Amino acid sequence: MTIPFKPRRSVEQIEEGHELAPKFDAQGLIPCVTTNFESGELLMHGYMNEEALRQTIELGEAVYYSRSRKSLWHKGATSGLVQKVREMRIDDDQDCVWLRVDVLGCGASCHVGYRSCFYRQVPLGSDRQVSDALIFVENEKLFDPQETYGDAPNPTQI
Amino acid sequence: MTIPFKPRRSVEQIEEGHELAPKFDAQGLIPCVTTNFESGELLMHGYMNEEALRQTIELGEAVYYSRSRKSLWHKGATSGLVQKVREMRIDDDQDCVWLRVDVLGCGASCHVGYRSCFYRQVPLGSDRQVSDALIFVENEKLFDPQETYGDAPNPTQI
Repeated sequence: MTIPFKPRRSVEQIEEGHELAPKFDAQGLIPCVTTNFESGELLMHGYMNEEALRQTIELGEAVYYSRSRKSLWHKGATSGLVQKVREMRIDDDQDCVWLRVDVLGCGASCHVGYRSCFYRQVPLGSDRQVSDALIFVENEKLFDPQETYGDAPNPTQI
Repeated sequence: MTIPFKPRRSVEQIEEGHELAPKFDAQGLIPCVTTNFESGELLMHGYMNEEALRQTIELGEAVYYSRSRKSLWHKGATSGLVQKVREMRIDDDQDCVWLRVDVLGCGASCHVGYRSCFYRQVPLGSDRQVSDALIFVENEKLFDPQETYGDAPNPTQI
């Protein structure tokens, strides 16, 4: 199956049309927001290149482009934590993808071991006078990254 | 009030620590995912520079950086559709921000007039054999962009 991405011709076509005409940035990437289908929780924010987006549409499983490893990344290939795509959406100017997924296995999507990558809250406004420390909103890891990934390099870049 | 962003020193500090040490990209930007606090719906995907992130933390209202206008963008300043931030989170490697917001006024966050920027669904897998046309999941605009924005340039870039 080929997934033809359409050329971007006009604002009206892009915003109000029925054609998939995604915009990839100067690095050939489009950001992707992934949420849990049932709970709505934001799980992760990643990137796709043209091939990753094509494969995700074909497979119905999330395929990203790893900027740290510079390669396609079929989420869950190592960990088993595959993301089954229940729904994909595209935004108004078609430069961002939204995946609504079910996560297989223990349900985690974060390489640190948490369910969501967004496991810390940032205090706002006057709350910061009490403390400006990040607050952990998940307190337990769902898997042991050392056990799952072994000596694979950590994708977090300083 | 100053919001000191901490220097990024180690993977452990960034992933497991209590310090806010955000990573801005080569353009000085960090992506921001904004969802509706109550429904969990993804409303928009934007960007912040250091000043926008600082102001959002201080004000408790979403301030983005507009890449098309190349300027700070206090969401709702023109339209009245201010996003009150109920919760802010940061991800594992601190290169993405999540805002959970209430939207004032008619509740729309999309410049095209829809509630969410993600008003179209992309058919997946075998469903594409029936039709590969994008499916509108919102059918009614909450405001008239022409009335609200007048002749201001459309931010969508072809």
